[in-house]
Amino acid sequence: MSQPAAIDPREFRQALGNFATGVTIITTRAADGTSVGVTCSSFNSVSLNPPLVLWSLENAAKSLLVFQTAPFWAVHVLATDQEELSSRFARRGEDKFNGLELEKGLGDIPLLTGCTARFQCRTAFQYDGGDHTIFVGEVQTFDRSEAPPLVFHGGKYAHATRRDAPGTKPRSAYLAGSFGEDFLGYLLGRSHFRFFAQIRPHLAEAGLSDEEFYVLSALTLKRSMTAGELAAGMEGVLDDSCRKSIDSLVGRGLAYEAAVVAEALSPEYQLTEAGRACALRLISAAKAVESQVLEAMGEADAPVLKSLLNRLLSVIDPAAAVLWEDRNRKR
Amino acid sequence: MSQPAAIDPREFRQALGNFATGVTIITTRAADGTSVGVTCSSFNSVSLNPPLVLWSLENAAKSLLVFQTAPFWAVHVLATDQEELSSRFARRGEDKFNGLELEKGLGDIPLLTGCTARFQCRTAFQYDGGDHTIFVGEVQTFDRSEAPPLVFHGGKYAHATRRDAPGTKPRSAYLAGSFGEDFLGYLLGRSHFRFFAQIRPHLAEAGLSDEEFYVLSALTLKRSMTAGELAAGMEGVLDDSCRKSIDSLVGRGLAYEAAVVAEALSPEYQLTEAGRACALRLISAAKAVESQVLEAMGEADAPVLKSLLNRLLSVIDPAAAVLWEDRNRKR
Repeated sequence: MSQPAAIDPREFRQALGNFATGVTIITTRAADGTSVGVTCSSFNSVSLNPPLVLWSLENAAKSLLVFQTAPFWAVHVLATDQEELSSRFARRGEDKFNGLELEKGLGDIPLLTGCTARFQCRTAFQYDGGDHTIFVGEVQTFDRSEAPPLVFHGGKYAHATRRDAPGTKPRSAYLAGSFGEDFLGYLLGRSHFRFFAQIRPHLAEAGLSDEEFYVLSALTLKRSMTAGELAAGMEGVLDDSCRKSIDSLVGRGLAYEAAVVAEALSPEYQLTEAGRACALRLISAAKAVESQVLEAMGEADAPVLKSLLNRLLSVIDPAAAVLWEDRNRKR
Repeated sequence: MSQPAAIDPREFRQALGNFATGVTIITTRAADGTSVGVTCSSFNSVSLNPPLVLWSLENAAKSLLVFQTAPFWAVHVLATDQEELSSRFARRGEDKFNGLELEKGLGDIPLLTGCTARFQCRTAFQYDGGDHTIFVGEVQTFDRSEAPPLVFHGGKYAHATRRDAPGTKPRSAYLAGSFGEDFLGYLLGRSHFRFFAQIRPHLAEAGLSDEEFYVLSALTLKRSMTAGELAAGMEGVLDDSCRKSIDSLVGRGLAYEAAVVAEALSPEYQLTEAGRACALRLISAAKAVESQVLEAMGEADAPVLKSLLNRLLSVIDPAAAVLWEDRNRKR
């Protein structure tokens, strides 16, 4: 039999990381009553009949002996919002259960709450797994929720996002050279306009155009901004109409030209009290629209969409820094 | 010891599905030289030193005996674009390797290509796993790529999307009631405008306004549309300016009022040859912009972003059906 070539542990670990997994916490109770728990991503299903699952634990782990002698243990498949819990149980030494809401399982094992699935098991087999011990458990009882899962991939936490059904294709293409529904510009434009269409009635009530609303919103971000800063922050958004929108907000008493500070060469604009009140009303209406849309989209997809739009903007939107960064830090 | 309560296999399988996994194909060569392969999501890492991995195979599987007697087998961790390969190896009976690009591994086992990681193993242990057999293999050699992984969760294929680093927070909030960079409306608006800003120079060259470009693009989707259909399809996008943009395209010879068909009450608009040529030029410029942006964003995130925007639109954009659905089917 051939002797294996030397395997670099760092590279091996990296290659193993290419296999995505959920994240679990396995808990049990020691003979002395102590609660014990470890984070583990090497869990998987084994058998349906009998119902078996497995996971493996490093032989060097402080809790090895406890798990080897415990009749019962519980597998908690973590939900997407339990990243902190995962990190807590991956560390050593502290009282990991401190302050957590717990339930009691078979054999008085501590059960965590808020997970996407839980399996309470009786040890069926313990197998040699090199520097780990493989625990195979017979599932005695289990529960699950609809919470989206925490995922681990490439050494980092990740979201799992359902794929589109195969064969989901643009619905029409009369002209071979048309965009198709898959064109990013179409998706972004449509999403923006249709989302904004739900906010526009509130703007109409306040007598504001889209452009005036953009400038009003930008002015909520800093104590004051010059027309040049506003124009730079709105580059590509409001190219010609920025100045006009500022003047219109000033004319309507929603913004004003503030006293020029010594080192600034151009006047700075701030919201008036009326402008601030108007902005607050519109922002709260807009956030209500957002809540409805995100709820309709589902709790699994909404945060991933936001995170990916942020990543897209980091590629295409250097101008936003003017709006969001602390001006004093740049000077 | 307590007897487990009856476990419903369907519910048990569903709870197990809440644990996300990658997808692997395990291959080997039978004693008679036949190539054998099965899709398997119950793979996981076991030990670093010695380097061990495991997976389990149903005892009822036709290939069980082959794997029990084969000295070597290979684990292929599938990439996101290998969903079809996964389905092929999950089926029974056909020649699964037919037409695939293969390499030869240890013991002449067939190796698939294009995976995100591959582990060539020598069987170390075979363990009882209820209605499955657990195979533990010692990794002899492995390779990996940067390809994003195929993920399985809840009985469906999924994408894994890296989470934002913890503590990634909006950068500024002078006014407690400001939107923050996390507001979906901000993200969509900014993304749309900044993306579109890269296309606008091409429109300027063609002498088209944003609105005229939207109508021109819409007219590439069907042979002809009435002004009413265009306005309905553009609801929330071009509320007042749709009619004006149609007239302007007609005035510039890019669209024309086609002969009224018998059953239609209002005139239909079509692109002229010049309009079609203009649309093709702009579409190809816009697609070049899209390619650059998607490449900068990375191959893992770009398809997920598109898919989530499509899901968002399914929630907020019923009007799009007018543009994309076959009118004849609705009549």
